[in-house]
Amino acid sequence: MVQTSDILVGAIEAGGTKFVCAVGTGPGERMLARAAFPTGERPAELLATVVDWLKEQEGRHGRLRALGVASFGPVDLRPGSPTYGFITSTPKPGWRNAEVLGPLRAAFADIPIGFDTDVNGAALGEHAWGSAVGLSDFVYITIGTGIGAGALVGGQLLHGLVHPEMGHLRLRRESKDRFRGVCPYHEDCWEGLCSGPAIKKRTGMRAEDLPPEHPAWDLAARYIAQAVANITCVLSPQRVILGGSVPKGGRLGGDRLFRRIREKLQAALNGYISAPALGPEIDRYLVPPLLGDDAGVCGAMALGQRAAGEEPAV
Amino acid sequence: MVQTSDILVGAIEAGGTKFVCAVGTGPGERMLARAAFPTGERPAELLATVVDWLKEQEGRHGRLRALGVASFGPVDLRPGSPTYGFITSTPKPGWRNAEVLGPLRAAFADIPIGFDTDVNGAALGEHAWGSAVGLSDFVYITIGTGIGAGALVGGQLLHGLVHPEMGHLRLRRESKDRFRGVCPYHEDCWEGLCSGPAIKKRTGMRAEDLPPEHPAWDLAARYIAQAVANITCVLSPQRVILGGSVPKGGRLGGDRLFRRIREKLQAALNGYISAPALGPEIDRYLVPPLLGDDAGVCGAMALGQRAAGEEPAV
Repeated sequence: MVQTSDILVGAIEAGGTKFVCAVGTGPGERMLARAAFPTGERPAELLATVVDWLKEQEGRHGRLRALGVASFGPVDLRPGSPTYGFITSTPKPGWRNAEVLGPLRAAFADIPIGFDTDVNGAALGEHAWGSAVGLSDFVYITIGTGIGAGALVGGQLLHGLVHPEMGHLRLRRESKDRFRGVCPYHEDCWEGLCSGPAIKKRTGMRAEDLPPEHPAWDLAARYIAQAVANITCVLSPQRVILGGSVPKGGRLGGDRLFRRIREKLQAALNGYISAPALGPEIDRYLVPPLLGDDAGVCGAMALGQRAAGEEPAV
Repeated sequence: MVQTSDILVGAIEAGGTKFVCAVGTGPGERMLARAAFPTGERPAELLATVVDWLKEQEGRHGRLRALGVASFGPVDLRPGSPTYGFITSTPKPGWRNAEVLGPLRAAFADIPIGFDTDVNGAALGEHAWGSAVGLSDFVYITIGTGIGAGALVGGQLLHGLVHPEMGHLRLRRESKDRFRGVCPYHEDCWEGLCSGPAIKKRTGMRAEDLPPEHPAWDLAARYIAQAVANITCVLSPQRVILGGSVPKGGRLGGDRLFRRIREKLQAALNGYISAPALGPEIDRYLVPPLLGDDAGVCGAMALGQRAAGEEPAV
């Protein structure tokens, strides 16, 4: 059960383009301060800036009781590991094997720090204040520059061996699709066929600019539906949240894109799994994130509150 | 942590062909009694027979402290549901909407009863005494008459909305494969292409009888590898256990079949997920079940011990 709480936390959404930081107890008017810093190529400098900003907010708003960090990756999430809290094999200049947690731990030695992937953070934020309140099992997917996913399973964030890499699912090619794909590891995995850069390379246009009748929308809907069908078969989630820039649907509109994906998802499952969520209630099974572009930083807040041993405030 | 325990349980592996029952505290010599009854078409009669047999064993071996039931499905696993403990939409004559748990509950009113899918049971048995001791996140897959999977995620059995249906993953067709598939719902999903009946229809021979050089083995290895790669991307397990009749490899042999699957699995992932388990330690990532054909009934024992509030004895 989610409990009301007033735990003041510092939140860091560590993204590949910018670090979004916040101080507060939740979204909206409960977010007392917010700032963004470009990620750049010098992790230590950036983290020092972030620490200064958080300390300054403490002076204004009171003592922080926890920090939460939702980071781009891949990241090392194994608490016993010597590189716990590091970004590991990213191609991003300056960030390979960069320590994210260490400088924060040094500056805030006496409070708990929650650390997880950006997508697990976003999942937790949607669980606390968004489209997944009250659920124990759901998936949060983002389709943008890349495709990634976080998940809650039995009420816990999914980690396992490393962390999920759902964007790299192999999909069945649509019969007329000859596009080669853009993934450097797998060419035409889901991310290779359906991410923002894939759509741009396939069509010469950004997804945002594609005309509503462009066949790339139908293709994207089919691949997304197939991937969600496979995720449904493996994880049996109660809901799937689809965020990021591509599901916004550009000039087609998110509502129309979601409708198409849901139709093709039901066609792919073909009634095999008997559950209202996959039948008449499909509109509530596949949904956009409620926190929108705030999902990341709110997720970091939720990670902080969870680290402090309490469920995020609602 | 798994604790040693001497909890005496009654176990029922409720299969589509036979119900295997046992009384004991674990596998091997700790299994004090064992019997099998044909499943038939009359659930109430069969369950009365099972109850009589269990009561008889109690007279000999002492009071049972819990029961465990690992059942074929689909089953209703939601404890609050009016049909909790029922088999639901099976095509098996006599078993559609059959109550399995009710008659056992009536006969053993004062002890806990663990109830789950056959594959979740087998997973728990392998966790207690087999190939998954000490792991928090792994998948148990069986490939035989059908393809099914159970999983432990964060130390808990995976349920979610209903339960996983990993056998119905859509796979990319191998380029020269024109076989239509045998799944009545999806034709050429994983089960449709790769189950025992699929191999028989594809080749005219049972998997057990296929010559080692038959191309159907290579095809099976490719499809299994692709499915395991996708499951790895979604669930990030620490290990994948592959049981059932097909992975035994017939005249090719299980060792050679597993070697091929591992090679193709590594080729499919192409080094993207950086972990020793998917690199030099791949032999320990994809493994056969240690309990072999006892996985089911041992799994039911483990479900019983878990229901009694203790980890299965080791």
